[in-house]
Amino acid sequence: MEQMQSVERWGVFEVTCEGPSEGNPFTEQWIRGTFSGKNETVTADGFYDGDGCYKVRFMPSFEGVYTYQVEAGFLEQPLTGTFQVLPAEERNHGPVRVANTYHFAYEDGTPYYSVGTTCYVWALQSDEQIAETLETLKNNAFNKIRFCIFPKHYDYNLGEPRSYPYEGTPMDSSVLNSENFWQYQGKAEGNDWDLERFHPEHFRHLEWCVEQLRDLGIEADLIVMHPYDRWGFSCMTQEQDDLYWKYVLARFSAYRNVWWSLANEYDLLRSKKVEDWERYAGIICEKDPYGHLRSIHNCGPFYDYSRPWVTHCSIQRQDMYRTAEYTDEWRIRWKKPVVLDEIAYEGNIPHGWGNITAEELVRRFWEAACRGGYAGHGETYLNPENVLWWSHGGKLHGESQKRFRLLHEILQETPGIGLRYDGEHFGEVRAVPEESWAEQPVKDYYLIYYSFMRPSSKDYYFDDTTEFQVKVIDTWNMTVEDRGVMKGKIHIELPGRQYMAVQMKKV
Amino acid sequence: MEQMQSVERWGVFEVTCEGPSEGNPFTEQWIRGTFSGKNETVTADGFYDGDGCYKVRFMPSFEGVYTYQVEAGFLEQPLTGTFQVLPAEERNHGPVRVANTYHFAYEDGTPYYSVGTTCYVWALQSDEQIAETLETLKNNAFNKIRFCIFPKHYDYNLGEPRSYPYEGTPMDSSVLNSENFWQYQGKAEGNDWDLERFHPEHFRHLEWCVEQLRDLGIEADLIVMHPYDRWGFSCMTQEQDDLYWKYVLARFSAYRNVWWSLANEYDLLRSKKVEDWERYAGIICEKDPYGHLRSIHNCGPFYDYSRPWVTHCSIQRQDMYRTAEYTDEWRIRWKKPVVLDEIAYEGNIPHGWGNITAEELVRRFWEAACRGGYAGHGETYLNPENVLWWSHGGKLHGESQKRFRLLHEILQETPGIGLRYDGEHFGEVRAVPEESWAEQPVKDYYLIYYSFMRPSSKDYYFDDTTEFQVKVIDTWNMTVEDRGVMKGKIHIELPGRQYMAVQMKKV
Repeated sequence: MEQMQSVERWGVFEVTCEGPSEGNPFTEQWIRGTFSGKNETVTADGFYDGDGCYKVRFMPSFEGVYTYQVEAGFLEQPLTGTFQVLPAEERNHGPVRVANTYHFAYEDGTPYYSVGTTCYVWALQSDEQIAETLETLKNNAFNKIRFCIFPKHYDYNLGEPRSYPYEGTPMDSSVLNSENFWQYQGKAEGNDWDLERFHPEHFRHLEWCVEQLRDLGIEADLIVMHPYDRWGFSCMTQEQDDLYWKYVLARFSAYRNVWWSLANEYDLLRSKKVEDWERYAGIICEKDPYGHLRSIHNCGPFYDYSRPWVTHCSIQRQDMYRTAEYTDEWRIRWKKPVVLDEIAYEGNIPHGWGNITAEELVRRFWEAACRGGYAGHGETYLNPENVLWWSHGGKLHGESQKRFRLLHEILQETPGIGLRYDGEHFGEVRAVPEESWAEQPVKDYYLIYYSFMRPSSKDYYFDDTTEFQVKVIDTWNMTVEDRGVMKGKIHIELPGRQYMAVQMKKV
Repeated sequence: MEQMQSVERWGVFEVTCEGPSEGNPFTEQWIRGTFSGKNETVTADGFYDGDGCYKVRFMPSFEGVYTYQVEAGFLEQPLTGTFQVLPAEERNHGPVRVANTYHFAYEDGTPYYSVGTTCYVWALQSDEQIAETLETLKNNAFNKIRFCIFPKHYDYNLGEPRSYPYEGTPMDSSVLNSENFWQYQGKAEGNDWDLERFHPEHFRHLEWCVEQLRDLGIEADLIVMHPYDRWGFSCMTQEQDDLYWKYVLARFSAYRNVWWSLANEYDLLRSKKVEDWERYAGIICEKDPYGHLRSIHNCGPFYDYSRPWVTHCSIQRQDMYRTAEYTDEWRIRWKKPVVLDEIAYEGNIPHGWGNITAEELVRRFWEAACRGGYAGHGETYLNPENVLWWSHGGKLHGESQKRFRLLHEILQETPGIGLRYDGEHFGEVRAVPEESWAEQPVKDYYLIYYSFMRPSSKDYYFDDTTEFQVKVIDTWNMTVEDRGVMKGKIHIELPGRQYMAVQMKKV
């Protein structure tokens, strides 16, 4: 007797079968599976993977014995089988969910404090460069990365991707330079694609990338559409769009570390209207049986994040100066987690969104964190290889990334899940655990950030009796100094430098 | 025959006479003078200066022969006389006026670009310390200083002033410390003043200070009322207030370098209402015959700067983060010059308004300037002498002040009077001369500031033919690099550092 197939909880269970390769299997065939365990029954669409091969994927949310039944237009009899879902391995905590209204946790309850970065098309570069990106990710604290399924056309991004999502021939890119590339933006002319026939290898490779991230404990914030396009992928017909969305959903939904970003800078996709975005969201809600996180990212005006399908805000700052400092206001506005996926990048390119200092980017991370939200990193340093992390991945040349591990460690010390801004305290950002109720006179935990301010000392008074373990954190120099247990009128000497924080934990 | 008395244009001409010293001359006597030249006739109140001495002062606005006639309740016959107004000396440009709606110029037409500082009670310190303050002012680029007529009671300000404005005895200050001083704020208890009997020496000394400033080319932005008070001067009766205002106006109006700041942080003077401020403003408009600049400074909510008596906005920033960056919006709101008298000070004290870096303060000055307004300096470094510039004057310990001369020099190169913000340019602050009309395709002059952004290069295009002299300014390192004459597509390499500016002047 054959041993029963097995998969870990929140792993990918895949059923493969042979089927027709003639005609256009992408549009003419269908396949789907139903997976049943003691606690759930899930129906998921499958997809054509080329060469007569069809697949259906499933992510089990519980342990135990499951059965499946796969049906397809081309199958006379459903395929059936049984498999065992084993306990999750140590580093597997399940998909990330919204927790505590403004925060996130893995499905097993472990808090997830987002430390994101952006590398739009790292996955579409050469094997060597992808390996370098993964190595960089491995050595840093990022636990989310935003990247695109479609290739990207933009300044510093005029080369060909390693593959295309469709069968066909792209326009001749040798005519492009950094002055004329705008003219080709969002136009299909010069390309010759069959937009009803996917190129499975493109997607298989992206899946491999998602798996590599998963194994590094990194969430894959998949940008499904975006405006930086010279191939016409941003201006397909409604039918082509929907076909694409369903294919993406069938392929990627079973990966626990996937988040859906409907678009980068949705408002720059001139041919798409709110009705289109809402239709795509409807397709996700229908076709992703696991409820992965869903959002959409703006360039200028915000999307209406109050829409019920939006699980969290994915924000690009709208002001050059005040950025992460709006986090607490945006929380009040939308009552959802606030993720500041773009608040300018560390770098030195001419573009105003890509040339802030490492200090300022780290400062924005801390401001966001202490106001109950999450900032995102990106790096845009000019370099001899002309490989900018923000787009192509590779190496990091900057300084900000080194400081995120400390922030992440400090966030993990929060009692419960998540911080919130504790009202107005002039000249400081005072955070308390989300659970602290407003009227509670003394909270159990304070994380107080001084941003660009440079106090030489600070005085605090909560009550006469509560004892706090006090630590002084230099968020830039990455030191944590234990000042012992204090109570009553608490006086703390500080170094009069920027970027200091004070942590006070009830003993 | 006696030689005719003379005074320079915009100098102080003073008529002195003996009068009664019995009773209360401050309330029971009056004196006023009328001064007539070819182009003006001015009536000004005089004042009692103690010891039976009465004075009337006058600032002539024109050259030539003037006559005067001084009347008083105690004089049976008016005093009359003739004097000669001579041309202004080289450094005397007259009082500062609003010019070009949003800017300032001296009465002789010379543009005045405000580079202000704040030393609330420098004038009430010891002779040695006043001398040190004047020496510091002499060696720096400040051309305006805000300071108080009343003494100040606040953290770092608990000592006694050199003199008091009234006859009487102050409360015992030995009970004060930096924890309990708040309890005495705005209260009269423990003091014993005759609030109808001024102490002329206090005012004579302040006049001497105003004269010293005048001779250094510095405007005296006189703060007439303020809330940081343990003597009851902030909660006098309406009659006492009015008596005080009239005395101040009679004494100081004839000094060309005086500006009226009705209050520092008017909104913290709990016992005063809008009607009171409007009444004081009415007294100024009635009693200051020279129309010196008038404003009022907020702590929290702005005063209604649209009131007709307000000549310019005297703003304290309302946000820890976005400060000078609001300048262009406030100009639109009030259509008056925007002076940011308090946007946080360079320093390291615990207070959030007094611990920003020199870099950030200089950055705010440039932001304000390139958005068509004027920022103000202050310094609050802890130091062994416990003398903080912001309050007591003395030495400067910081770095920001060294950078203001360059800013002032660059501002003086503006064609016409004043800059304005040239609309939205992402990632830069582009200023053009106020005179440039909106539709003018190419302006004659650009001053472009990159703030905390670090572009490695910038490209500009105005038209194919206009030639510009291009200079690259490092506002922090104080260098100006001439890049020669350029036209058409202008490419400028920049060092990828913060705080750079580019100046482009039509050849």
